[in-house]
Amino acid sequence: DHIVICGWNPTARELIEELKGDEFKARVVIIHDVEHNPAGSGTYFVRGDPTSGDDLRRAGIEDAAAAVICPSDSSNDADMRSILSVLAIETIAPEVRTVVEVNNPKHVEHFERAHADEILVTPRLASRLLARSALYPGLASLVTDLVSGGQGSELYRVRVPDHLFGETPGALATLLRSNHNSSLIAVTRDGISHASPPADFMLREGDCAIVVAESLTALAPLQAEHALSGARSPVARPA
Amino acid sequence: DHIVICGWNPTARELIEELKGDEFKARVVIIHDVEHNPAGSGTYFVRGDPTSGDDLRRAGIEDAAAAVICPSDSSNDADMRSILSVLAIETIAPEVRTVVEVNNPKHVEHFERAHADEILVTPRLASRLLARSALYPGLASLVTDLVSGGQGSELYRVRVPDHLFGETPGALATLLRSNHNSSLIAVTRDGISHASPPADFMLREGDCAIVVAESLTALAPLQAEHALSGARSPVARPA
Ligand SMILES: [Ca+2]
Ligand SMILES: [Ca+2]
Repeated sequence: DHIVICGWNPTARELIEELKGDEFKARVVIIHDVEHNPAGSGTYFVRGDPTSGDDLRRAGIEDAAAAVICPSDSSNDADMRSILSVLAIETIAPEVRTVVEVNNPKHVEHFERAHADEILVTPRLASRLLARSALYPGLASLVTDLVSGGQGSELYRVRVPDHLFGETPGALATLLRSNHNSSLIAVTRDGISHASPPADFMLREGDCAIVVAESLTALAPLQAEHALSGARSPVARPA
Repeated sequence: DHIVICGWNPTARELIEELKGDEFKARVVIIHDVEHNPAGSGTYFVRGDPTSGDDLRRAGIEDAAAAVICPSDSSNDADMRSILSVLAIETIAPEVRTVVEVNNPKHVEHFERAHADEILVTPRLASRLLARSALYPGLASLVTDLVSGGQGSELYRVRVPDHLFGETPGALATLLRSNHNSSLIAVTRDGISHASPPADFMLREGDCAIVVAESLTALAPLQAEHALSGARSPVARPA
Protein backbone atom coordinates (compact mmCIF):
# COMPACT_ATOMS: atom_id res chain seq x y z
CA ASP A 1 0.00 0.00 0.00
CA HIS A 2 2.83 2.38 -0.89
CA ILE A 3 2.77 5.33 -3.29
CA VAL A 4 4.82 5.21 -6.49
CA ILE A 5 5.97 8.55 -7.88
CA CYS A 6 6.80 8.40 -11.58
CA GLY A 7 9.16 11.12 -12.77
CA TRP A 8 10.58 14.16 -11.03
CA ASN A 9 9.74 17.88 -11.12
CA PRO A 10 9.03 20.63 -8.56
CA THR A 11 5.57 19.20 -7.87
CA ALA A 12 7.09 15.79 -7.08
CA ARG A 13 9.65 17.48 -4.82
CA GLU A 14 6.87 19.24 -2.86
CA LEU A 15 4.83 16.04 -2.75
CA ILE A 16 7.76 14.18 -1.16
CA GLU A 17 8.17 16.95 1.41
CA GLU A 18 4.52 16.63 2.27
CA LEU A 19 4.49 12.82 2.37
CA LYS A 20 7.60 12.82 4.58
CA GLY A 21 5.71 14.93 7.12
CA ASP A 22 4.32 13.42 10.29
CA GLU A 23 0.76 13.34 9.10
CA PHE A 24 1.21 10.77 6.36
CA LYS A 25 2.46 7.28 7.03
CA ALA A 26 2.71 6.22 3.36
CA ARG A 27 5.92 4.63 2.07
CA VAL A 28 7.11 6.26 -1.14
CA VAL A 29 8.94 4.75 -4.13
CA ILE A 30 10.32 7.00 -6.86
CA ILE A 31 10.99 5.77 -10.42
CA HIS A 32 13.16 8.12 -12.39
CA ASP A 33 15.99 7.68 -14.87
CA VAL A 34 18.83 9.42 -13.04
CA GLU A 35 21.84 8.08 -11.12
CA HIS A 36 20.95 9.26 -7.61
CA ASN A 37 17.66 9.40 -5.72
CA PRO A 38 16.46 13.01 -6.18
CA ALA A 39 14.21 12.70 -3.10
CA GLY A 40 16.96 11.83 -0.61
CA SER A 41 16.68 9.70 2.50
CA GLY A 42 13.40 8.28 3.75
CA THR A 43 12.27 7.20 0.29
CA TYR A 44 12.90 4.19 -1.94
CA PHE A 45 14.40 4.73 -5.38
CA VAL A 46 14.20 2.66 -8.55
CA ARG A 47 16.36 3.91 -11.39
CA GLY A 48 14.31 3.20 -14.44
CA ASP A 49 11.75 4.21 -17.03
CA PRO A 50 8.22 4.77 -15.64
CA THR A 51 6.73 3.72 -18.99
CA SER A 52 8.35 0.25 -18.72
CA GLY A 53 6.31 -2.59 -17.23
CA ASP A 54 9.45 -4.24 -15.88
CA ASP A 55 10.63 -1.10 -14.12
CA LEU A 56 7.15 -0.43 -12.73
CA ARG A 57 7.08 -4.01 -11.35
CA ARG A 58 10.48 -3.42 -9.73
CA ALA A 59 8.83 -0.49 -7.93
CA GLY A 60 6.15 -2.88 -6.69
CA ILE A 61 3.37 -1.27 -8.73
CA GLU A 62 1.14 -4.32 -8.28
CA ASP A 63 0.95 -3.73 -4.51
CA ALA A 64 0.79 0.08 -4.64
CA ALA A 65 -2.20 2.08 -3.42
CA ALA A 66 -1.58 4.92 -5.82
CA ALA A 67 0.78 6.19 -8.48
CA VAL A 68 1.45 9.89 -9.03
CA ILE A 69 2.76 10.68 -12.51
CA CYS A 70 4.61 14.00 -12.88
CA PRO A 71 5.86 15.40 -16.20
CA SER A 72 9.63 15.85 -16.29
CA ASP A 73 9.29 19.27 -17.95
CA SER A 74 6.54 21.46 -19.39
CA SER A 75 6.69 20.03 -22.93
CA ASN A 76 4.09 18.10 -24.89
CA ASP A 77 6.61 15.23 -25.09
CA ALA A 78 6.55 14.96 -21.31
CA ASP A 79 2.74 14.57 -21.46
CA MET A 80 3.20 11.79 -24.05
CA ARG A 81 5.50 9.89 -21.68
CA SER A 82 2.98 10.37 -18.87
CA ILE A 83 0.22 8.89 -21.07
CA LEU A 84 2.43 5.83 -21.68
CA SER A 85 3.03 5.49 -17.93
CA VAL A 86 -0.69 5.67 -17.11
CA LEU A 87 -1.42 3.16 -19.85
CA ALA A 88 1.23 0.78 -18.48
CA ILE A 89 0.04 1.05 -14.87
CA GLU A 90 -3.67 0.77 -15.69
CA THR A 91 -2.89 -2.35 -17.78
CA ILE A 92 -0.62 -4.08 -15.24
CA ALA A 93 -2.49 -3.04 -12.09
CA PRO A 94 -5.81 -1.31 -12.84
CA GLU A 95 -6.79 -1.21 -9.16
CA VAL A 96 -3.94 1.24 -8.49
CA ARG A 97 -5.20 4.81 -8.28
CA THR A 98 -3.39 6.77 -11.00
CA VAL A 99 -3.13 10.50 -10.36
CA VAL A 100 -1.47 12.54 -13.07
CA GLU A 101 -0.23 16.09 -13.46
CA VAL A 102 -0.84 17.27 -17.03
CA ASN A 103 0.85 20.16 -18.90
CA ASN A 104 -1.52 20.71 -21.81
CA PRO A 105 -5.32 20.60 -21.41
CA LYS A 106 -5.57 19.34 -25.00
CA HIS A 107 -4.15 16.02 -23.80
CA VAL A 108 -6.82 15.36 -21.15
CA GLU A 109 -8.88 13.13 -23.47
CA HIS A 110 -5.88 10.87 -24.05
CA PHE A 111 -5.35 10.49 -20.31
CA GLU A 112 -9.04 9.65 -19.93
CA ARG A 113 -8.78 6.96 -22.62
CA ALA A 114 -5.78 5.52 -20.76
CA HIS A 115 -8.08 5.33 -17.66
CA ALA A 116 -6.25 7.80 -15.44
CA ASP A 117 -8.20 8.02 -12.18
CA GLU A 118 -7.54 11.68 -11.46
CA ILE A 119 -6.18 14.39 -13.76
CA LEU A 120 -4.83 17.75 -12.63
CA VAL A 121 -4.04 20.29 -15.36
CA THR A 122 -1.73 22.46 -13.30
CA PRO A 123 -1.22 25.31 -15.80
CA ARG A 124 -4.99 25.74 -16.17
CA LEU A 125 -5.49 25.86 -12.40
CA ALA A 126 -2.57 28.29 -12.01
CA SER A 127 -3.75 30.54 -14.85
CA ARG A 128 -7.27 30.77 -13.38
CA LEU A 129 -5.86 31.82 -10.04
CA LEU A 130 -3.35 34.25 -11.57
CA ALA A 131 -6.01 35.84 -13.79
CA ARG A 132 -8.22 36.37 -10.74
CA SER A 133 -5.29 37.77 -8.78
CA ALA A 134 -4.45 40.22 -11.54
CA LEU A 135 -7.98 41.61 -11.84
CA TYR A 136 -9.76 41.02 -8.53
CA PRO A 137 -7.56 41.09 -5.43
CA GLY A 138 -8.54 38.93 -2.49
CA LEU A 139 -10.26 35.98 -4.08
CA ALA A 140 -7.32 33.98 -5.38
CA SER A 141 -5.46 34.27 -2.11
CA LEU A 142 -8.55 32.95 -0.32
CA VAL A 143 -8.67 29.89 -2.57
CA THR A 144 -4.93 29.36 -2.29
CA ASP A 145 -5.08 29.62 1.50
CA LEU A 146 -7.93 27.15 1.72
CA VAL A 147 -6.12 24.67 -0.51
CA SER A 148 -2.55 25.15 0.59
CA GLY A 149 -3.14 24.82 4.31
CA GLY A 150 -1.47 27.93 5.66
CA GLN A 151 -2.83 29.87 8.63
CA GLY A 152 -6.51 30.77 8.88
CA SER A 153 -9.54 28.82 7.84
CA GLU A 154 -9.10 25.55 6.02
CA LEU A 155 -11.02 22.67 4.57
CA TYR A 156 -12.06 19.84 6.84
CA ARG A 157 -13.98 16.66 6.29
CA VAL A 158 -16.65 15.92 8.90
CA ARG A 159 -18.70 12.76 9.34
CA VAL A 160 -22.41 13.62 9.31
CA PRO A 161 -23.68 12.92 12.86
CA ASP A 162 -26.30 10.18 13.30
CA HIS A 163 -29.05 12.51 14.49
CA LEU A 164 -29.05 14.24 11.08
CA PHE A 165 -29.72 11.10 9.03
CA GLY A 166 -32.93 11.76 7.08
CA GLU A 167 -32.51 15.53 7.43
CA THR A 168 -31.75 18.07 4.67
CA PRO A 169 -28.34 19.57 3.82
CA GLY A 170 -29.80 22.84 5.14
CA ALA A 171 -30.15 21.36 8.63
CA LEU A 172 -26.51 20.28 8.50
CA ALA A 173 -25.44 23.74 7.30
CA THR A 174 -27.36 25.40 10.14
CA LEU A 175 -25.77 23.11 12.74
CA LEU A 176 -22.29 23.78 11.36
CA ARG A 177 -22.77 27.52 11.33
CA SER A 178 -24.57 27.88 14.67
CA ASN A 179 -22.49 25.50 16.75
CA HIS A 180 -19.12 25.44 14.96
CA ASN A 181 -18.89 28.77 13.11
CA SER A 182 -18.10 26.84 9.94
CA SER A 183 -19.48 26.70 6.39
CA LEU A 184 -20.78 23.65 4.55
CA ILE A 185 -19.30 23.43 1.06
CA ALA A 186 -20.29 19.99 -0.14
CA VAL A 187 -21.62 16.61 0.92
CA THR A 188 -19.50 13.63 -0.11
CA ARG A 189 -21.32 10.34 -0.80
CA ASP A 190 -19.80 7.19 -2.34
CA GLY A 191 -16.62 9.05 -3.23
CA ILE A 192 -18.42 11.84 -5.10
CA SER A 193 -18.65 15.40 -3.81
CA HIS A 194 -21.97 17.20 -4.22
CA ALA A 195 -21.53 20.96 -3.89
CA SER A 196 -24.78 22.80 -3.14
CA PRO A 197 -26.86 19.61 -2.77
CA PRO A 198 -30.60 20.31 -3.22
CA ALA A 199 -33.07 20.30 -0.32
CA ASP A 200 -34.34 16.79 -1.21
CA PHE A 201 -30.80 15.31 -0.92
CA MET A 202 -31.57 13.52 2.38
CA LEU A 203 -28.53 12.85 4.55
CA ARG A 204 -27.72 9.21 5.35
CA GLU A 205 -25.14 7.04 7.05
CA GLY A 206 -21.70 7.26 5.44
CA ASP A 207 -22.15 10.83 4.23
CA CYS A 208 -19.38 13.29 4.95
CA ALA A 209 -19.38 17.07 4.86
CA ILE A 210 -16.62 19.23 3.42
CA VAL A 211 -16.51 22.39 5.49
CA VAL A 212 -14.48 25.56 5.88
CA ALA A 213 -13.63 26.02 9.54
CA GLU A 214 -11.10 27.73 11.77
CA SER A 215 -9.71 24.58 13.37
CA LEU A 216 -10.38 20.98 14.32
CA THR A 217 -11.14 22.23 17.84
CA ALA A 218 -13.96 24.43 16.54
CA LEU A 219 -15.54 21.33 15.02
CA ALA A 220 -15.49 19.20 18.20
CA PRO A 221 -17.29 17.03 19.18
CA LEU A 222 -18.02 16.20 15.52
CA GLN A 223 -15.81 13.50 14.05
CA ALA A 224 -13.57 15.52 11.75
CA GLU A 225 -10.31 15.39 9.91
CA HIS A 226 -8.19 18.00 8.25
CA ALA A 227 -9.08 17.56 4.61
CA LEU A 228 -5.71 18.66 3.26
CA SER A 229 -3.30 17.17 5.77
CA GLY A 230 -5.18 14.10 7.04
CA ALA A 231 -4.74 15.17 10.69
CA ARG A 232 -7.56 13.76 12.80
CA SER A 233 -9.68 15.46 15.38
CA PRO A 234 -8.49 14.63 18.92
CA VAL A 235 -12.09 13.68 19.68
CA ALA A 236 -12.47 11.39 16.67
CA ARG A 237 -14.22 8.09 17.25
CA PRO A 238 -12.98 5.07 15.27
CA ALA A 239 -14.49 5.03 11.77
CA ASP B 1 -4.94 49.58 -17.90
CA HIS B 2 -3.53 46.62 -19.83
CA ILE B 3 -1.94 43.46 -18.44
CA VAL B 4 1.75 42.78 -19.05
CA ILE B 5 2.80 39.13 -19.12
CA CYS B 6 6.51 38.64 -18.43
CA GLY B 7 7.94 35.38 -19.75
CA TRP B 8 6.30 32.39 -21.34
CA ASN B 9 5.33 28.92 -20.09
CA PRO B 10 2.22 26.70 -20.11
CA THR B 11 0.57 28.85 -17.41
CA ALA B 12 1.09 31.97 -19.55
CA ARG B 13 -0.34 30.12 -22.55
CA GLU B 14 -3.50 29.20 -20.58
CA LEU B 15 -3.74 32.70 -19.19
CA ILE B 16 -3.73 34.16 -22.71
CA GLU B 17 -6.44 31.72 -23.76
CA GLU B 18 -8.53 32.84 -20.81
CA LEU B 19 -7.88 36.57 -21.31
CA LYS B 20 -8.76 36.25 -25.02
CA GLY B 21 -12.19 34.92 -24.03
CA ASP B 22 -15.26 37.10 -24.22
CA GLU B 23 -15.52 37.73 -20.52
CA PHE B 24 -12.33 39.76 -20.19
CA LYS B 25 -11.78 43.00 -22.02
CA ALA B 26 -8.17 43.49 -20.95
CA ARG B 27 -5.49 44.24 -23.53
CA VAL B 28 -2.46 42.01 -23.13
CA VAL B 29 1.22 42.75 -23.81
CA ILE B 30 3.79 39.92 -23.68
CA ILE B 31 7.49 40.55 -23.04
CA HIS B 32 9.66 37.59 -23.93
CA ASP B 33 13.03 37.16 -25.55
CA VAL B 34 12.09 35.16 -28.65
CA GLU B 35 11.73 36.14 -32.30
CA HIS B 36 7.98 35.61 -32.75
CA ASN B 37 5.02 36.34 -30.49
CA PRO B 38 4.29 33.01 -28.77
CA ALA B 39 0.71 34.13 -27.99
CA GLY B 40 -0.35 34.78 -31.59
CA SER B 41 -2.90 37.29 -32.83
CA GLY B 42 -4.96 39.48 -30.53
CA THR B 43 -2.01 40.29 -28.26
CA TYR B 44 0.82 42.83 -28.33
CA PHE B 45 4.39 41.56 -28.27
CA VAL B 46 7.61 43.20 -27.08
CA ARG B 47 10.74 41.22 -27.79
CA GLY B 48 12.89 41.91 -24.78
CA ASP B 49 14.08 41.07 -21.29
CA PRO B 50 11.42 41.37 -18.57
CA THR B 51 14.11 42.26 -16.00
CA SER B 52 15.14 45.36 -18.03
CA GLY B 53 13.57 48.69 -17.12
CA ASP B 54 13.83 49.87 -20.71
CA ASP B 55 12.05 46.82 -22.10
CA LEU B 56 9.37 47.02 -19.40
CA ARG B 57 8.78 50.68 -20.33
CA ARG B 58 8.46 49.68 -24.01
CA ALA B 59 5.64 47.37 -22.84
CA GLY B 60 3.97 50.36 -21.19
CA ILE B 61 4.50 49.07 -17.66
CA GLU B 62 3.84 52.54 -16.19
CA ASP B 63 0.24 52.47 -17.45
CA ALA B 64 -0.45 48.79 -16.76
CA ALA B 65 -3.05 47.58 -14.29
CA ALA B 66 -1.19 44.38 -13.52
CA ALA B 67 1.87 42.35 -14.47
CA VAL B 68 1.90 38.55 -14.39
CA ILE B 69 5.40 37.08 -14.11
CA CYS B 70 5.78 33.45 -15.22
CA PRO B 71 9.01 31.41 -14.84
CA SER B 72 10.40 30.24 -18.19
CA ASP B 73 11.11 26.76 -16.77
CA SER B 74 10.96 24.97 -13.41
CA SER B 75 14.52 25.88 -12.34
CA ASN B 76 15.72 28.01 -9.45
CA ASP B 77 17.37 30.30 -12.01
CA ALA B 78 13.97 31.05 -13.49
CA ASP B 79 12.78 32.15 -10.03
CA MET B 80 15.85 34.43 -9.77
CA ARG B 81 14.93 36.13 -13.05
CA SER B 82 11.33 36.51 -11.79
CA ILE B 83 12.59 38.20 -8.62
CA LEU B 84 14.55 40.69 -10.76
CA SER B 85 11.42 41.37 -12.84
CA VAL B 86 9.27 42.03 -9.76
CA LEU B 87 11.97 44.26 -8.33
CA ALA B 88 12.17 46.23 -11.58
CA ILE B 89 8.39 46.66 -11.90
CA GLU B 90 7.81 47.55 -8.24
CA THR B 91 10.60 50.16 -8.50
CA ILE B 92 9.47 51.74 -11.79
CA ALA B 93 5.72 51.49 -11.22
CA PRO B 94 4.82 50.34 -7.68
CA GLU B 95 1.09 50.91 -8.24
CA VAL B 96 1.07 48.08 -10.80
CA ARG B 97 -0.28 44.88 -9.28
CA THR B 98 2.50 42.25 -9.59
CA VAL B 99 1.30 38.67 -9.62
CA VAL B 100 3.99 36.01 -9.80
CA GLU B 101 4.11 32.27 -10.32
CA VAL B 102 6.91 30.77 -8.20
CA ASN B 103 8.68 27.42 -8.63
CA ASN B 104 10.33 26.96 -5.25
CA PRO B 105 8.58 27.83 -1.96
CA LYS B 106 12.00 28.65 -0.45
CA HIS B 107 12.07 31.76 -2.65
CA VAL B 108 8.80 33.25 -1.36
CA GLU B 109 10.58 35.50 1.15
CA HIS B 110 12.65 37.07 -1.63
CA PHE B 111 9.51 37.81 -3.65
CA GLU B 112 7.97 39.39 -0.55
CA ARG B 113 11.03 41.61 -0.06
CA ALA B 114 10.72 42.67 -3.71
CA HIS B 115 7.10 43.70 -2.86
CA ALA B 116 5.28 41.23 -5.10
CA ASP B 117 1.55 41.82 -4.60
CA GLU B 118 0.45 38.22 -5.03
CA ILE B 119 2.52 35.03 -5.00
CA LEU B 120 1.34 31.65 -6.26
CA VAL B 121 3.62 28.67 -5.58
CA THR B 122 2.18 26.38 -8.22
CA PRO B 123 4.10 23.19 -7.32
CA ARG B 124 2.96 23.45 -3.71
CA LEU B 125 -0.66 23.91 -4.73
CA ALA B 126 -0.41 21.03 -7.22
CA SER B 127 1.31 18.72 -4.74
CA ARG B 128 -1.36 19.36 -2.10
CA LEU B 129 -4.09 18.50 -4.57
CA LEU B 130 -2.23 15.46 -5.93
CA ALA B 131 -1.50 14.14 -2.44
CA ARG B 132 -5.18 14.43 -1.57
CA SER B 133 -6.14 12.76 -4.83
CA ALA B 134 -3.80 9.86 -4.19
CA LEU B 135 -5.10 9.17 -0.69
CA TYR B 136 -8.66 10.49 -0.45
CA PRO B 137 -10.69 10.41 -3.67
CA GLY B 138 -13.31 13.09 -4.17
CA LEU B 139 -11.91 16.09 -2.37
CA ALA B 140 -9.26 17.29 -4.80
CA SER B 141 -11.63 17.08 -7.74
CA LEU B 142 -14.13 19.19 -5.79
CA VAL B 143 -11.53 21.90 -5.19
CA THR B 144 -10.31 21.71 -8.78
CA ASP B 145 -13.88 21.98 -10.09
CA LEU B 146 -14.63 24.98 -7.90
CA VAL B 147 -11.47 26.74 -9.00
CA SER B 148 -11.26 25.74 -12.63
CA GLY B 149 -14.79 26.67 -13.56
CA GLY B 150 -16.05 23.52 -15.22
CA GLN B 151 -19.63 22.31 -14.88
CA GLY B 152 -21.38 22.13 -11.51
CA SER B 153 -21.14 24.47 -8.58
CA GLU B 154 -18.72 27.34 -8.70
CA LEU B 155 -17.53 30.33 -6.75
CA TYR B 156 -19.45 33.58 -7.03
CA ARG B 157 -19.05 36.96 -5.46
CA VAL B 158 -22.25 38.51 -4.12
CA ARG B 159 -22.82 42.03 -2.82
CA VAL B 160 -24.28 41.89 0.69
CA PRO B 161 -27.84 43.25 0.37
CA ASP B 162 -28.69 46.46 2.25
CA HIS B 163 -31.21 44.87 4.60
CA LEU B 164 -28.44 42.75 6.14
CA PHE B 165 -26.21 45.68 7.14
CA GLY B 166 -25.72 45.37 10.92
CA GLU B 167 -26.60 41.67 10.87
CA THR B 168 -24.29 38.72 11.56
CA PRO B 169 -22.56 36.50 8.98
CA GLY B 170 -24.91 33.76 10.20
CA ALA B 171 -27.94 35.72 8.98
CA LEU B 172 -26.29 36.05 5.57
CA ALA B 173 -25.47 32.33 5.50
CA THR B 174 -29.06 31.43 6.34
CA LEU B 175 -30.43 33.70 3.61
CA LEU B 176 -28.03 32.21 1.04
CA ARG B 177 -28.88 28.65 1.97
CA SER B 178 -32.64 29.07 2.35
CA ASN B 179 -33.36 31.25 -0.66
CA HIS B 180 -30.48 30.45 -3.03
CA ASN B 181 -29.33 26.93 -2.10
CA SER B 182 -25.79 28.25 -1.84
CA SER B 183 -23.02 28.21 0.79
CA LEU B 184 -21.24 31.19 2.31
CA ILE B 185 -17.46 30.68 2.27
CA ALA B 186 -16.09 34.07 3.21
CA VAL B 187 -16.90 37.73 3.60
CA THR B 188 -14.62 40.11 1.70
CA ARG B 189 -14.03 43.55 3.22
CA ASP B 190 -11.48 46.16 2.04
CA GLY B 191 -9.86 43.61 -0.29
CA ILE B 192 -9.34 41.01 2.44
CA SER B 193 -11.28 37.75 2.58
CA HIS B 194 -12.46 36.58 5.99
CA ALA B 195 -13.31 32.89 5.95
CA SER B 196 -15.53 31.80 8.86
CA PRO B 197 -16.01 35.35 10.20
CA PRO B 198 -17.10 35.32 13.87
CA ALA B 199 -20.64 36.15 14.98
CA ASP B 200 -19.61 39.68 16.05
CA PHE B 201 -18.32 40.50 12.53
CA MET B 202 -21.26 42.79 11.72
CA LEU B 203 -22.01 43.17 8.02
CA ARG B 204 -21.76 46.63 6.53
CA GLU B 205 -21.94 48.50 3.23
CA GLY B 206 -19.28 47.44 0.75
CA ASP B 207 -19.02 43.89 2.09
CA CYS B 208 -19.15 41.07 -0.44
CA ALA B 209 -19.78 37.38 0.09
CA ILE B 210 -17.85 34.59 -1.61
CA VAL B 211 -20.30 31.74 -2.12
CA VAL B 212 -20.53 28.32 -3.73
CA ALA B 213 -23.64 28.17 -5.86
CA GLU B 214 -25.10 26.33 -8.82
CA SER B 215 -25.44 29.34 -11.10
CA LEU B 216 -25.90 33.10 -11.32
CA THR B 217 -29.61 32.46 -11.83
CA ALA B 218 -29.86 30.68 -8.48
CA LEU B 219 -28.44 33.80 -6.83
CA ALA B 220 -30.92 36.27 -8.37
CA PRO B 221 -32.07 38.85 -7.38
CA LEU B 222 -28.85 39.32 -5.40
CA GLN B 223 -26.18 41.35 -7.17
CA ALA B 224 -23.67 38.69 -8.08
CA GLU B 225 -20.77 37.97 -10.38
CA HIS B 226 -19.00 34.81 -11.33
CA ALA B 227 -15.89 34.93 -9.18
CA LEU B 228 -13.66 33.04 -11.62
CA SER B 229 -14.82 34.40 -14.95
CA GLY B 230 -16.07 37.89 -14.12
CA ALA B 231 -19.46 37.23 -15.80
CA ARG B 232 -22.12 39.39 -14.23
CA SER B 233 -25.59 38.49 -13.09
CA PRO B 234 -28.19 39.52 -15.69
CA VAL B 235 -30.10 41.12 -12.82
CA ALA B 236 -27.12 43.06 -11.47
CA ARG B 237 -27.75 46.62 -10.41
CA PRO B 238 -25.02 49.17 -11.11
CA ALA B 239 -22.34 49.10 -8.41
CA1 LIG C 1 -6.72 2.74 -11.70
CA1 LIG D 1 2.69 46.72 -6.79
